[in-house]
Amino acid sequence: MSEQKTKIGVIGSGSWATAMIKMLTDNHKDKVINWWVRKQEDIDYIKSYQHNPSYLSAVEIKLAESSLFIDAKAVIQQSDIVILNTPAAYLEDALEGLTLEDMQGKIIVSAIKGIIPSLKEIVGEYLVDKYAVSTDDIIVVGGPCHAEEVSLEKLSYLTFASKNTANAAFVAQFFQTHYIKTVISNDAIGVEYGAVLKNIYALAGGICHGIGYGDNFQAVLISNAIREMEYFVDAIEPQDREINNSGYLGDLLVTAYSQFSRNRTFGTMIGKGYSVKSAQLEMNMVAEGYFASDCIQEIINRHHLQMPICNTVYDILYKNKSAVLAVKELADKLS
Amino acid sequence: MSEQKTKIGVIGSGSWATAMIKMLTDNHKDKVINWWVRKQEDIDYIKSYQHNPSYLSAVEIKLAESSLFIDAKAVIQQSDIVILNTPAAYLEDALEGLTLEDMQGKIIVSAIKGIIPSLKEIVGEYLVDKYAVSTDDIIVVGGPCHAEEVSLEKLSYLTFASKNTANAAFVAQFFQTHYIKTVISNDAIGVEYGAVLKNIYALAGGICHGIGYGDNFQAVLISNAIREMEYFVDAIEPQDREINNSGYLGDLLVTAYSQFSRNRTFGTMIGKGYSVKSAQLEMNMVAEGYFASDCIQEIINRHHLQMPICNTVYDILYKNKSAVLAVKELADKLS
Repeated sequence: MSEQKTKIGVIGSGSWATAMIKMLTDNHKDKVINWWVRKQEDIDYIKSYQHNPSYLSAVEIKLAESSLFIDAKAVIQQSDIVILNTPAAYLEDALEGLTLEDMQGKIIVSAIKGIIPSLKEIVGEYLVDKYAVSTDDIIVVGGPCHAEEVSLEKLSYLTFASKNTANAAFVAQFFQTHYIKTVISNDAIGVEYGAVLKNIYALAGGICHGIGYGDNFQAVLISNAIREMEYFVDAIEPQDREINNSGYLGDLLVTAYSQFSRNRTFGTMIGKGYSVKSAQLEMNMVAEGYFASDCIQEIINRHHLQMPICNTVYDILYKNKSAVLAVKELADKLS
Repeated sequence: MSEQKTKIGVIGSGSWATAMIKMLTDNHKDKVINWWVRKQEDIDYIKSYQHNPSYLSAVEIKLAESSLFIDAKAVIQQSDIVILNTPAAYLEDALEGLTLEDMQGKIIVSAIKGIIPSLKEIVGEYLVDKYAVSTDDIIVVGGPCHAEEVSLEKLSYLTFASKNTANAAFVAQFFQTHYIKTVISNDAIGVEYGAVLKNIYALAGGICHGIGYGDNFQAVLISNAIREMEYFVDAIEPQDREINNSGYLGDLLVTAYSQFSRNRTFGTMIGKGYSVKSAQLEMNMVAEGYFASDCIQEIINRHHLQMPICNTVYDILYKNKSAVLAVKELADKLS
């Protein structure tokens, strides 16, 4: 007569996925957890040493050996809740070979917060378009939450957003621990676009910092950015929302004011005069905000929106416009 | 047939007043500037060396010797625009001996952003109550603006707020330079209360930081703080306002995320376990947020408002409540 345990599959093994494994295993609710890790050598390492060799290595992995999988499809097929947590650029690879049927009847949680570069879609749209997932079954997880602070068990808040708030609350209960509080939102699309935009704004903050603008200007930039974000999501997905909730403003703040944000660092290099290509080579990684800028610009053009900060970042990154000149012109539009 | 030059009197000689002298003298608009400096030795030093010996000493003071005054009353009597820029705690002293008549027919600009401790009033209210200044003639200057960045000519934005926006714009034109842009607002009371509240929130941020909360929590705290600020000013002074404008949110951000904020530093010491008295002794100064907390709490009680962050700070500073316990309870109320 025992109730069937909920089966949760985590797809991805970077910092944020590792942080989620920690939350799920520290959470006391009964469940089965299966984890897709991309490389066999990482699986072997985790089995031997109970730590992810590459990301959040301080976190002890409290999973049975039988919970680790090299086959994403196998994990997804046996899950009630699928948590997508790869970099956006690798999601299509990870899901290769999956059919519409494989994804039906499951709750799909996106923890990705990025644009799929080849399709220029946010993950929520991709799941609907490619796999016909019902929007009721899509949950977006928003910050503000650096994975590093989760590993230190610093109190953090996660926003679980879905058109179906009961589903969002159902998923959220598996993440609550003494260091994780959860917030429920009915605005999956707004939270996901907000998470994408915040990377562009953090990149913008970096550019201005790199040029030499100070903290006074940064505060003006971010106060304009949150208004620009609200304007955008209201245009794309009109509904009642409080843009100053932690899932939007909080997420923007933790990214824009972080010294560790890749987007901010990338922007700082651009502001200092590096070309996009040399900044990418130097960092040996690509900032999500770089892809996001291109995609968001398409949406801006399609809907004829007024988004001066996003326009400025796009002109600098993709149109080779002088950062010094572009920000000088932007400054006249801020208030 | 020459038009009479506008006479501007600056009352106060701290960092922020010195920054304003720099803006006013760098601004090209024709005007007369008179400056009240409290100590004769500082006046002598400025006359000899063209620098304020104690504050923003890198700034060259481009004023004639005859523009420096030890007598505040003399400065005010001959001014069309009076700029009040002392610490809130010293304003009454500075204005001692002035009559209602002395203040009539002048535009009074408050750059103070604090509570007058003995009266528990913001400066705008004090000017109305004590000197019967018309609210049309009161201008509040808001940030976000560290004085230090003005001395470096880093681009900054100032908000000039008044019931009478023409008066606000009239004053603003004397401050515009290549590094200062101005924003006009019709919400003097909201901007002034916002500036007072932000010191309490920066203090709260410091307390949490001192206890050991991280950046994830800080972002949640500030996203709740701006909602709490909006709720407060909407209750005290109902009118249409965009709380995410730089005069409110921007000012909060530059203070709460500054390493140099006295309020944040004071809060950090409290969070680390210092008593209020020993933190004050150690810092050798009093953070404005300390006085603000007491005054705002009175208003909260009078209006039966729900202000969990302000309540928490008050309980810690004035009721000797354990900071660890108080923030733990606060965390359950944030979202």
